[in-house]
Amino acid sequence: MKVEKTIYSRIKNINFNNISFGKYYSDHMFSSEFKNGKWINSIIKPFGKILLSPISLVFHYGQAVFEGMKAYKDKDNKVFLFRPKENFKRINKSAIRLEMPPIPEDIFMNGLRKLIDIDRDWIPKSYGKSLYIRPFLIATSTILSAKPSNDYMFIIVSTPVDSYYNNPLKVKIEDKYSRSTKGGVGFTKAAGNYASSFYPTRIANNEGFDQILWTDSYTHTKIEELGTMNVIFWFKDKLITPKANDRILRGITCNSILSIAKKEKIIVEERNLNVKEIIEGIKKGELKEAFGCGTAAVINFFKTINYKGNNFYLPDLPKSDRLSLLLKKKLLDIQHNLSEDTFGWRILLKKNI
Amino acid sequence: MKVEKTIYSRIKNINFNNISFGKYYSDHMFSSEFKNGKWINSIIKPFGKILLSPISLVFHYGQAVFEGMKAYKDKDNKVFLFRPKENFKRINKSAIRLEMPPIPEDIFMNGLRKLIDIDRDWIPKSYGKSLYIRPFLIATSTILSAKPSNDYMFIIVSTPVDSYYNNPLKVKIEDKYSRSTKGGVGFTKAAGNYASSFYPTRIANNEGFDQILWTDSYTHTKIEELGTMNVIFWFKDKLITPKANDRILRGITCNSILSIAKKEKIIVEERNLNVKEIIEGIKKGELKEAFGCGTAAVINFFKTINYKGNNFYLPDLPKSDRLSLLLKKKLLDIQHNLSEDTFGWRILLKKNI
Repeated sequence: MKVEKTIYSRIKNINFNNISFGKYYSDHMFSSEFKNGKWINSIIKPFGKILLSPISLVFHYGQAVFEGMKAYKDKDNKVFLFRPKENFKRINKSAIRLEMPPIPEDIFMNGLRKLIDIDRDWIPKSYGKSLYIRPFLIATSTILSAKPSNDYMFIIVSTPVDSYYNNPLKVKIEDKYSRSTKGGVGFTKAAGNYASSFYPTRIANNEGFDQILWTDSYTHTKIEELGTMNVIFWFKDKLITPKANDRILRGITCNSILSIAKKEKIIVEERNLNVKEIIEGIKKGELKEAFGCGTAAVINFFKTINYKGNNFYLPDLPKSDRLSLLLKKKLLDIQHNLSEDTFGWRILLKKNI
Repeated sequence: MKVEKTIYSRIKNINFNNISFGKYYSDHMFSSEFKNGKWINSIIKPFGKILLSPISLVFHYGQAVFEGMKAYKDKDNKVFLFRPKENFKRINKSAIRLEMPPIPEDIFMNGLRKLIDIDRDWIPKSYGKSLYIRPFLIATSTILSAKPSNDYMFIIVSTPVDSYYNNPLKVKIEDKYSRSTKGGVGFTKAAGNYASSFYPTRIANNEGFDQILWTDSYTHTKIEELGTMNVIFWFKDKLITPKANDRILRGITCNSILSIAKKEKIIVEERNLNVKEIIEGIKKGELKEAFGCGTAAVINFFKTINYKGNNFYLPDLPKSDRLSLLLKKKLLDIQHNLSEDTFGWRILLKKNI
């Protein structure tokens, strides 16, 4: 792998006490190209623009998949990645469904490690803050036929992010628009999944809701996910989350939260979940919490759930009684090397690798 | 609109007797940018690469829509566009569903006319050949939040295309994967719709089929479209095509073909169409032809339709008995100014506009 370091770091311009999500990018980027069936030109170079033909397939036929992950610092400035192999596996699952070449493990992992090592000063130190890492794969062949690309570019960039303020969410259960369908690409991080959710989300925002809780496209009665987060419901003595299927992008954060919950002897059910159950759970006072979880926000609990125009209010628990916040703390403690990592999730990033 | 002409035309390198689809691009491109709520920097300039940040939203969240249309020459070298306003209307329908700003009519139409006027030598003259025109709109904001872009780029490029060889298609009725769903974006030319069809199409190709005939994602019993073409069935005395809905991208070529058919006193039915009807129609000998229609291929008739592993053979009609080829000829005659255009579809492109 070639490494070209910048001669002018932008880091001194950044106020790490005031970093909004995805606004500043670290000094370097990793890129690798797929051409004639081979991965070539792996390089770490200064973050900068890329030059593409207007015919590049990604602009026309949407062959583009991505990942989201984070690097953390502990109090001694040691740097950790969190379950990076899960992101490696998932980007290739997405790539395969979009008929793109899987990225070799050494290109993904070595590019990632070397990039984050070089840009380690960009990782904020405080608890809850991190460096958000965005690996993505795009189609670059320059022929207008609606066929899979021959050429691809794999890129990793990163951006320092603040701890996410957990403003309780007002969520709308969607009963008109759809995010995905059986036999589709909902289980992948395909770029097109996000664009298609913007219009229904704007409608929901205009109605006063923060996010859409997506349901199945057939009947709009089965809960799926939030589009950028998975959803977990806390009923009496157990956590319930919709069972993974080809309409749901199952998150690494969600899986980790559920693993921590199981370790805490909390019952976890992964199964089909009806809107009716949620509404009845709220009415009967059996639903204690509902929350989204994902890499960006970690955990974000709901204040209200709206269904067909009616607002249903979730219990206004004190923070100390919230299972969501307890689980979040346990996850962040592992990520920031403040507690023992019995799962083996935390990967120390050595210096000057 | 600024115009910067190339000082070196590539046209002398092109053998117009051997042009494969989307391989060569005409000398110029049109582009216009949307920034701070305004369309600015409209320009015609030499065809060339574009410089984008790796964070550009199109790479991550798939906000990208496009159109496909053609310019034709008659025997006197007069140049015609075909129903360009329909493409203008449709790209904005797509844009709105993907929460992108609609393109103003004057930017779309003036950019198109001026570009094709300047590159008119790139339009092949022979019957059936044309200049394929690709307008597209992409999101260019450089912030990683999964939210609609603030900035966009609208570009038009063009490529000379041969008359399409009508190799009869072997088509597979899909009963596992889905192209779109109710409440989704199937009715738009969103980039992501194409990428998600590549994997199922490759599987169909490996099984020996040319294209997939998509069905509804609920039951896989209702016929929808071909992904790059609409589908029309010729039953005894009438043509039947699936009724437009939010899963089907209704094509301008298909609409034109149906209008020509109606003018020829052929009964046209637009309605829900079951797989069962198709299979029984073949068995009873009532289905005379099935064909796809779209801008690129114009019309492409089927040889076989495969359903759940069984091949159903369509009648091996002589070319002179094929309604599909008659309708195709009538359409091409209008496009190439060989017959009267009672519909008002053909738009003469004046010189040096």
